[in-house]
Order: sequence, then structure tokens, then C-alpha cells
Amino acid sequence: MSKNCLVAQSGGPTPIINASLQGVIEAALENKEIKKVYGARFGISGLMKDMICDLTNEDKKDISLLKHTPGSILGSCRYKLGEMSEDVTDYEKIFDILEKYNIKYFYYIGGNDSMDTVAKLNNYAKYNNKNLVVMGIPKTVDNDLLVTDHSPGFGSAAKYIATSVMETTLDSRVYQRKNVHLIEVMGRHAGWLAAASALAGETGLETPDLIYFPEITFSTDKFVKDLKEKAKEKDNIIVVVSEGIKDSDGNYISASESSKHDQFGHKQMGGAAKALVPYIKEYVYDRVKVIEFNVLQRAANHIASKTDADEAFECGKKAVEFSVHGNASGKAVVIKRTSNKPYQSKIELADVDLIANKEKKVPRDWINEAGNHVKEEALEYLRPLIKGEMERKTEKGLPKYTDLDAAVTVKPKSDI
Amino acid sequence: MSKNCLVAQSGGPTPIINASLQGVIEAALENKEIKKVYGARFGISGLMKDMICDLTNEDKKDISLLKHTPGSILGSCRYKLGEMSEDVTDYEKIFDILEKYNIKYFYYIGGNDSMDTVAKLNNYAKYNNKNLVVMGIPKTVDNDLLVTDHSPGFGSAAKYIATSVMETTLDSRVYQRKNVHLIEVMGRHAGWLAAASALAGETGLETPDLIYFPEITFSTDKFVKDLKEKAKEKDNIIVVVSEGIKDSDGNYISASESSKHDQFGHKQMGGAAKALVPYIKEYVYDRVKVIEFNVLQRAANHIASKTDADEAFECGKKAVEFSVHGNASGKAVVIKRTSNKPYQSKIELADVDLIANKEKKVPRDWINEAGNHVKEEALEYLRPLIKGEMERKTEKGLPKYTDLDAAVTVKPKSDI
Repeated sequence: MSKNCLVAQSGGPTPIINASLQGVIEAALENKEIKKVYGARFGISGLMKDMICDLTNEDKKDISLLKHTPGSILGSCRYKLGEMSEDVTDYEKIFDILEKYNIKYFYYIGGNDSMDTVAKLNNYAKYNNKNLVVMGIPKTVDNDLLVTDHSPGFGSAAKYIATSVMETTLDSRVYQRKNVHLIEVMGRHAGWLAAASALAGETGLETPDLIYFPEITFSTDKFVKDLKEKAKEKDNIIVVVSEGIKDSDGNYISASESSKHDQFGHKQMGGAAKALVPYIKEYVYDRVKVIEFNVLQRAANHIASKTDADEAFECGKKAVEFSVHGNASGKAVVIKRTSNKPYQSKIELADVDLIANKEKKVPRDWINEAGNHVKEEALEYLRPLIKGEMERKTEKGLPKYTDLDAAVTVKPKSDI
Repeated sequence: MSKNCLVAQSGGPTPIINASLQGVIEAALENKEIKKVYGARFGISGLMKDMICDLTNEDKKDISLLKHTPGSILGSCRYKLGEMSEDVTDYEKIFDILEKYNIKYFYYIGGNDSMDTVAKLNNYAKYNNKNLVVMGIPKTVDNDLLVTDHSPGFGSAAKYIATSVMETTLDSRVYQRKNVHLIEVMGRHAGWLAAASALAGETGLETPDLIYFPEITFSTDKFVKDLKEKAKEKDNIIVVVSEGIKDSDGNYISASESSKHDQFGHKQMGGAAKALVPYIKEYVYDRVKVIEFNVLQRAANHIASKTDADEAFECGKKAVEFSVHGNASGKAVVIKRTSNKPYQSKIELADVDLIANKEKKVPRDWINEAGNHVKEEALEYLRPLIKGEMERKTEKGLPKYTDLDAAVTVKPKSDI
């Protein structure tokens, strides 16, 4: 007997997170084992409030535009499930909903926190003999997921960053005066996006001059010394700093006094670049511009990497295919790089336990000895991920995006 | 006898300022009246230091990439010429250089300050019987030039802003929580770029919710009231503020205490959006994100408007054609909109005196009565300017840009 499937999104968006959603929906609609395709709004959090939409009859054209649409279109959450050994309330709510909609396959698109949810739901299902196949589909601009060669979403954010660093560099040289441009990129604990800024120097532009990573203990003395060295030869210096740079006591470099934490215990950050301005003004150049790429680096679908979007789509599609063939519950689809020149990859399965709650850092030996730039190994890894231009769908000179009609009006239906 | 021409750039860059340069160079190389094509580095300021490069034999392929290259590639300046009635030192320096290189035609690509330079050089030349045709080619993302229907560079910045506001909007809706996104755009005295953000709402997205212009006196009370009203119906509010918003005393709303002025007496600004955060946190929603589009709005060539780039190119080309046909000195090429549906324009000549040192504001009756959004008249004006996608030239997944070999190595040659 055919059953239904459910898909949801969790954690921060990526420029192409909806490409994986499109992959899931299109593959599920084609699959004979699956009858209806449901979506949960706002991840596991909306699921518990019965915010379920039926995507089975959604307009095909709208679905085909998902890969061109930034922002998790089903909505997202950062809700952490407790241990079932301590409290089963959430679990019971979730499985009530899953049973209400006759869900056999549940695909959760998210990062390492979301893989924790997948692992816990899988354990609960097994322990309670529930007939559920729950799978993870990776996404994160941070690229900090283990096992997978790289994370869907990262390549597009990297492409946006490299492009914008190039454009900032060309802008920085316009006036005949000395200046430092400090660019802050995302990356709480892993400096993959900071590393990706080095791609801006791949086509002849000498940029960025310095890169600072969360992986390397940050010292303002060293920072000033690095800049003074650069200033001997360059009038316009481009520096990329990861938002997650920390001093030797493990404290984030931050201009902000706020130290809010989200539900996962992550510190709410911002302002690493701003915190460094006074040092530059005092010891290097008087002119400093801080540029924060902010949410655009995870939202700029208009310059998405085709390689990345295609892989994100494939991850969604393959998750559905794997799910109906058995032994897939508690697993995530992951990308394996099978060749670098030419670049080739394939989608495999991996236990979510290997990914959940863990972080993949930039290897120390991919960062130069001085700890302020990348080495060739990093570039070799990064290069293929930003390649390829997506066909540009535009309307009135603007990106053509989509909403899912079935999703937009969903409000909590019941407080189960 | 054929003479030489000189081209230079001045003021802030636009995403397609080099398209006008390309138009000048290509037209000048084809024109029989013109022998050599020189460029001055760093505008009038570099010219006075004899920072002249010979572009006549520059690689044609490099020249053809100029329209794909952001950042004033010859370099720019913000140097203001004094009155010749007071001091002729600068003028004599300039005309020494112009005579040294046998320059008959001088094209200056810039905004209203640069048109002041064109007007002054033209007056000096006439007064002293110098055989010089000096012309202005307009550019500015601010769109504040008089006479011309719109300014080359504006359409591309507008397209970047509208696109990025759309992407920010989709990102803002991801979590099920109330928030305000405050986006700051350029526009010191004129709110054209702020107005252009309204284009983000042209294809179905309800965004931005509120827009604040330098043309409308800013009141924090009114701002909080506007937001509270929006908060009744919306959880995710998108606000666009111009960097140039001022209170009823004429003081800029700014988080920064710095009040440096540039040589033209313009206040160095920043932080209008940041200054508003505490009001929102106290009276509206606790979650506020400030996004400054910063230099990227004037540098993001990768998403330039084809309409804009083509017109910028035409302005350069037509300036050369007009210059050799007489009566063009002291004039600027300007764009006249000859039809709106379908959009058509042509290039004409206008006295630079009509443009120099003046500012075109957004008409009051193009802004709604509440002073916090645009009216249809504004949209009608704006729509055609962002249309059309440029052919994307890429290399390794990144924009293909150019340097001009003749320009990059130019250092001051003599202190005339």
C-alpha cells in the first residue's frame, strides 16, 4: 500500500535550499510508492503545531521555480528536540501528526543541528516500532557538515562572496588614497566561507590580501603586524574576517556587548570586523570601510552556482529514491567527490549520527603558516564548487521566484 | 590636422561607469578627426600630475570587457577646481598637460561636481582662446543630475537594490518570528535609490513596507507610528532608509558621531539605519537586522541593467561624435526619454551649467502622502531602467573583468 511523504526545512537558509525541496517534491510525485506529498511549515516546530500543507497538486511550474527561489520557502526553525529518555511530549506530538497524515517517509533538509533531530526521530521510531523512514538532506552555507565532501548551499554562498570581494576590490582602488576594506563573512566555528573569498584572486585580481579564520586564534597584535606588512607594498588592502574569530581566551572578537544565545547555545554574534576598525585607524591607515555581507550571502540566489544548485536538487531527488528502497532511515544523503579534474560527484548515504552536532573545520594545513590566507589545497577543493551559471529566470528585470500556494496560508490547525 | 583626445573619470564609481569609457575609446579609435586616445588616471587630480596613459593601442578585447568591469578603471578623484578669478595655478597645470599631449577633445565622466569642472575648464579655455572641446558624460548611482532623464549607473544600482531587497525579504520570512529588516541605501540628498527599492514589489512580493527619503523630513515619532501600524498586519517588516534622512533641524540621522566633510563640503555619513534600531527594539519588535548595501550597490556589475549599460556606452560614443562636429564644448550628453511604453531614449546635448552643482530630487508628488513609500508615477519612471540582462562573461565561475594595461602602471611623470 502506498504511503505519504513529508518534507520540511530547518536551520538557516541557503541560496539554493529550495532546490533540494524541488528535488524531493518532483521525485516523490513521480514515485509509485508515494501517494501524497506533504510539507511541514517552520520545520519540526511547525510540524508539532500541525502546520501541514499538501503539495501534491501544487502547480508544476511553481515547483520548477523553487531552485530559483532563495529563503527556505516552507519556513524554518531552530527547535531542538530533548532526549526521549527525559521527556516524550514532543515525540508524541510529532508522531501523532505523522500518523494523522499517514506519513511513511520524512525528509528533513538542514544542517548539523537538524541531523540531530533526524537521529532522535529515527531512534524514537525504532524504539517504538513506528513505521517511519526519516532522512536528512544536508544544507548549510557554512560547509561545516562532516562526511559529505561539501554541503549544498556552500558553493552558491562562496560564489556570491568571491564575486562581491572582486567587486569590492575594484571599488577600493578607485581613489588615489590608502584604505583598508574589512569584509565580514559568515562562519561561526568554521572558516569555509572566509576561505572561499580567496577564489576572488583566481582570475588575476590580487585579492583578498588577508583572511582570518575561526580555526586560528586571533591576535590583534598579529593582525596589526600583518596589515603593516601589507601596507608596505599596497595602498588598498582587502581583509576578509570570519564572524567567528576568537581570541586566545576563546572569546569572540565582537563590537557588540550583547551575548544572547539561541536555543542550541550558539552565541548571537556580529561585529567582528567593526571591532577591528580602531586598530587599523590607529596603526595602519586612517580610512577603513567595513562591509558585512550579511544575509545576502545566504540569500543571493541570483548568482547561485549551477554546480551547487544541481547537487542540491540531486540530494533531494536521491533521498526520495533511497528512502523507498529500504535501510535508509536515520541516514542522510551526502556528496562524494569522485574526481576533481574534471569535477565529478555522486550522492551516497551516511549515518546521520556521524554528522549530527559535529563540525567540520578547515584543515590547519589548508591554511598558510601565518594563519592569514589559504594554501593551494584549499583552492583546489573550492574551485569546482562555484562553477556554472544557472539559467536566469527574470521578470521585469528582476529574479523570477515562486511561492508555494499550498504553503503560504497554512496556520496552526490544532494544538495536538 | 587630426588631434588627440583625453578621457577621465571622476566622483564615485557606478557598476557600469566603464561602459561610458568603452564608448569613448571605441568611438575615438574609429574617428578620423582623432589620432591618439589618452586617459588620465585619477581624474583631474591625476591629470595635473601628468598621470597620462596612451590607450590607443590597448588590446581591443580588454576594451570590450570594460562594460563588464566595475570600479572606475582609470581611477577617480573628488578634486574641486577653484575659481579662475582667484587662482589660475591649477588651470595652468591642466592646460600645460593638455598641450603637452596635443589634446583637442577632453571627455570627463562624472556627476554634478565633475560637471562643475567641465564648466570651469570650458570657461578658462574660452577666456584664454585655448582650442579645447571639453565635455561631460554623466554618471551617478544617485540619479540626482538635472536635465538628463536619468543618470547612467542608476539603473544598475537600482536593479541591484531591488533584487537584494527581494532576496532579503524572502530570507526575513524564514523563521516564525517577528522581525524588522532595516536596509540602508545610498542617496545623500536625493532618494532615487530608496525609491528604486519599491521595484522589489513589482512581481508579487509585498516589499518593502516602508521607505524613507532625504526629501521628507524624518521624525522618529512618525517612524515608530508607521512601524506600529505595519506590525498590526505583518510579522516581517522590511524598511528601506536612505543614508541621507534628516530631522527637522536638518541634521542627518546617524549612529556615528563623526562629522567629517569631503572637499566639496559633503558630510561623510553612515549609520542612518543603525541609529534607528533602538526605537524599533523599544516600541515595535525585539528582533532587528540592519543591512547596509554599502559599496556593492555601486560595484555590482554582475547584475547590471542592460538598458543602463547600453545607454552608458552610447553616452560615451555620442560624446565623441558630438565633440568633433562643433559647438559641443561646455556641454554634456544627456538622456532624453522619448517613449515609455515601449521604453525608448535618445542622447542629446545640454549645457553643463544646467547640471553642475545642482541636485535633482524625487518630486514630492511621486512620494505618497504619508511620505513613506512611492506612488505609481515613480514606478512608471523607474520600471524601464532596470530591464534587460547583460550577457554574462565568466571565467572559473567568476565575472570576467578587465584592467587596462596602459593604465595600471602609470605613476606621476612630472610635477609640472
